[in-house]
Amino acid sequence: MSDQGSQPDQPADNSARNLDAYRAAYAERTAGMTASEIRALFAVASRPEVVSLAGGMPNLAALPLESLGAEVGRLIAEDGQVALQYGSAHGVPELREQICEVMELEGITSHPDDVVVTAGSQMGLDMITRIFCDPGDVVLAEGPSYVGALGSFQAYQAEIVHVAMDDEGLQPEALRQAIAEVQQQGKRIKFLYTIPNFHNPGGITLAPERRPEVLEICRRAGILVIEDNPYGLLGFDGKPHQALRSLDADNVVYLGSFSKTFASGLRVGWVLAPLAIREKLVLTAESATLCPPTLTQMIVSRYLSTHDWKGQIKIFQEQYRERRDAMMTALEQYMPEGCTWTKPDGGFFVWLTVPEGVDTKAMLPRAVTQRVAYVSGTGFYKNGFGSRQMRLSFCYPTPERIREGVRRLANVLTEEMDLVRTFGTVPQRSVPGPQAPSPDTA
Amino acid sequence: MSDQGSQPDQPADNSARNLDAYRAAYAERTAGMTASEIRALFAVASRPEVVSLAGGMPNLAALPLESLGAEVGRLIAEDGQVALQYGSAHGVPELREQICEVMELEGITSHPDDVVVTAGSQMGLDMITRIFCDPGDVVLAEGPSYVGALGSFQAYQAEIVHVAMDDEGLQPEALRQAIAEVQQQGKRIKFLYTIPNFHNPGGITLAPERRPEVLEICRRAGILVIEDNPYGLLGFDGKPHQALRSLDADNVVYLGSFSKTFASGLRVGWVLAPLAIREKLVLTAESATLCPPTLTQMIVSRYLSTHDWKGQIKIFQEQYRERRDAMMTALEQYMPEGCTWTKPDGGFFVWLTVPEGVDTKAMLPRAVTQRVAYVSGTGFYKNGFGSRQMRLSFCYPTPERIREGVRRLANVLTEEMDLVRTFGTVPQRSVPGPQAPSPDTA
Repeated sequence: MSDQGSQPDQPADNSARNLDAYRAAYAERTAGMTASEIRALFAVASRPEVVSLAGGMPNLAALPLESLGAEVGRLIAEDGQVALQYGSAHGVPELREQICEVMELEGITSHPDDVVVTAGSQMGLDMITRIFCDPGDVVLAEGPSYVGALGSFQAYQAEIVHVAMDDEGLQPEALRQAIAEVQQQGKRIKFLYTIPNFHNPGGITLAPERRPEVLEICRRAGILVIEDNPYGLLGFDGKPHQALRSLDADNVVYLGSFSKTFASGLRVGWVLAPLAIREKLVLTAESATLCPPTLTQMIVSRYLSTHDWKGQIKIFQEQYRERRDAMMTALEQYMPEGCTWTKPDGGFFVWLTVPEGVDTKAMLPRAVTQRVAYVSGTGFYKNGFGSRQMRLSFCYPTPERIREGVRRLANVLTEEMDLVRTFGTVPQRSVPGPQAPSPDTA
Repeated sequence: MSDQGSQPDQPADNSARNLDAYRAAYAERTAGMTASEIRALFAVASRPEVVSLAGGMPNLAALPLESLGAEVGRLIAEDGQVALQYGSAHGVPELREQICEVMELEGITSHPDDVVVTAGSQMGLDMITRIFCDPGDVVLAEGPSYVGALGSFQAYQAEIVHVAMDDEGLQPEALRQAIAEVQQQGKRIKFLYTIPNFHNPGGITLAPERRPEVLEICRRAGILVIEDNPYGLLGFDGKPHQALRSLDADNVVYLGSFSKTFASGLRVGWVLAPLAIREKLVLTAESATLCPPTLTQMIVSRYLSTHDWKGQIKIFQEQYRERRDAMMTALEQYMPEGCTWTKPDGGFFVWLTVPEGVDTKAMLPRAVTQRVAYVSGTGFYKNGFGSRQMRLSFCYPTPERIREGVRRLANVLTEEMDLVRTFGTVPQRSVPGPQAPSPDTA
């Protein structure tokens, strides 16, 4: 991560842009390309003196690196001519079978042929957008939503329409309303992108009783559902929620990942899709990367067959629960009055709402000066909302560091609120309503 | 590869397409998506009784798998928390430095900041197309050209215009003419895509004296040059050609790969690009995969620093030369009169032209029945040409298998030519001229 700081944001004014000799040659989609807010933060957040509550890096300290290293060494020595050779764009067959077993934990019945392995779940997201979205097409997504998804939608010039959440997740009524409004404008909605479990960045979960309703609304409107579920097995009560895909095999495309349940640096994710879409995915993957790395797929496959992966997930669950608890306790203890936050039952993230007048984006440099980092809520919306929110992640720092980070953040916030009281309220764009939901349901 | 046969070609007729419930929802670019000819062949070619002269899989038998396995085992055991964690979209810094050293062998002076690591060179190609090509933009490419590149150009709805080659590679005069013709039509040319060394599928190399001329033509016309160079270090006389990039740092984007000089299944390639384009590449890579796999990058980096990688390349060169020689000898011995072929000085491929009347695409099923596979030339053109050509690869089969494969192929061809003599010549689309060059310069 250390070199991310060397990537400047794209210059905004014309004089600066004229320095780019290739400017006139770019495709239309390239013009809108800007660095994500999270990305610019990696540089500061990586300094050791800063407690970073910003990143979404999983905690790998608990992995059995010795035995894993030995296993991978054997894999290469004994089976290297396969593991180091090109494979198919569809993915390693044995791994696709194992992926079906993993998905069974969430009630999904599937066939290995319908699984396409990807170089990380982001690649699945990018390919789905590429397959479905023409410029100007509409994608529905929770507000807030995963910044990497918003980036992919924007990269293919899709228009993002946010749908409100509350503490039970996506609101069916807001979904109906958004669909009606977009259709009234004569625009085509290509899909609903949703993270039903332990939402990034919202930290909330779609209530089981809402799931059939959301699916029914989309099915009636002819809208595909993209279910992004990287955290599904990381619930703190140990019992996974039933996937949307388990309730509707025809109208849901499911995105899964080993990044959070095993190792993010292998970049092994997958898409489970109905036959016709799966065929398009394989063709798109050939064009995008020829095939995902054979070695990393075989490593995951070996890990699943030789290690107690379910036991490892339990260890992760316990660690993350301990860190969630540390964050909850610290927030209760330190946060000034007027702050509210979500209480996640799994995953990596808490969504914090600050009192009116405080701008989390403007405050961030002052927070970093006081050695704590977070992600401003504005990065998770495409319409400028979220300036009264921030995402706090509890996945990577130790409980002690989390506690210290929250304490520092509370100090910064308290100073900021003093300034607001002294100099008056700065106008905020974080208006409540269906277009600007904040899942601050603490 | 064994499961590729389960991917049927896209149905061509409307009644079959109506079976796809999502058809109306696809993006425009998805409509044109079809399986490549090479892909459909993997299934038949993988049967052990068939001598496959079709695939481009490198021969990994010579890799030091024992010591490599031990090294990777140590890497994971000792440094797993980095190797298994997310990295930056830009790539692992140490590897980017080493890549600059690799490129020095071809006369390239570069800075690690300008290198973007990709999940295989195909990903670089796909991203460059994505960054530059709007639908209808023109890409110039040698005729024939790499099928994966043509696939990416088509995926972004670019129009491909082929430029003729002869035994000295891309013809400058044909390039001038193609540029003038396209510009007269009022279309925008975004770049020239070229494989200057040991061309895939042509098996020929751009003459050193033509290189400055090609660069100058493109520079004057304001056309970027994409130099794809996966085989550059696999020349049989051991002395690499000077890269186009070494002659023009501002107007050349260089694509490199470890797939042929080390291990294809790691999917580690790179793009060397001028600053502004490199920044777009990093942003595009974030959207496409977040980051390339950290582990595979670190494996390449470790390999380069702990193994005699230059010595290994020499071993590869010797192996491939031996196989090239076996193919040349067999072609001389067995091929019926009227066949001509290129004589590659490096790389993986020979381009064979058959006598008039024989259609290589139509003949392929009969060849497979007689247990030999190749790729019909039509896959390497976007305009239906190439039916009198085929690509033969000598990279993967042993010399004995190559000899047997060529013998079988010659028998099939002889039978085919008998048929043509008996029943008359079938009209061919492989017309000579700048739009349908055949580098059959044997």
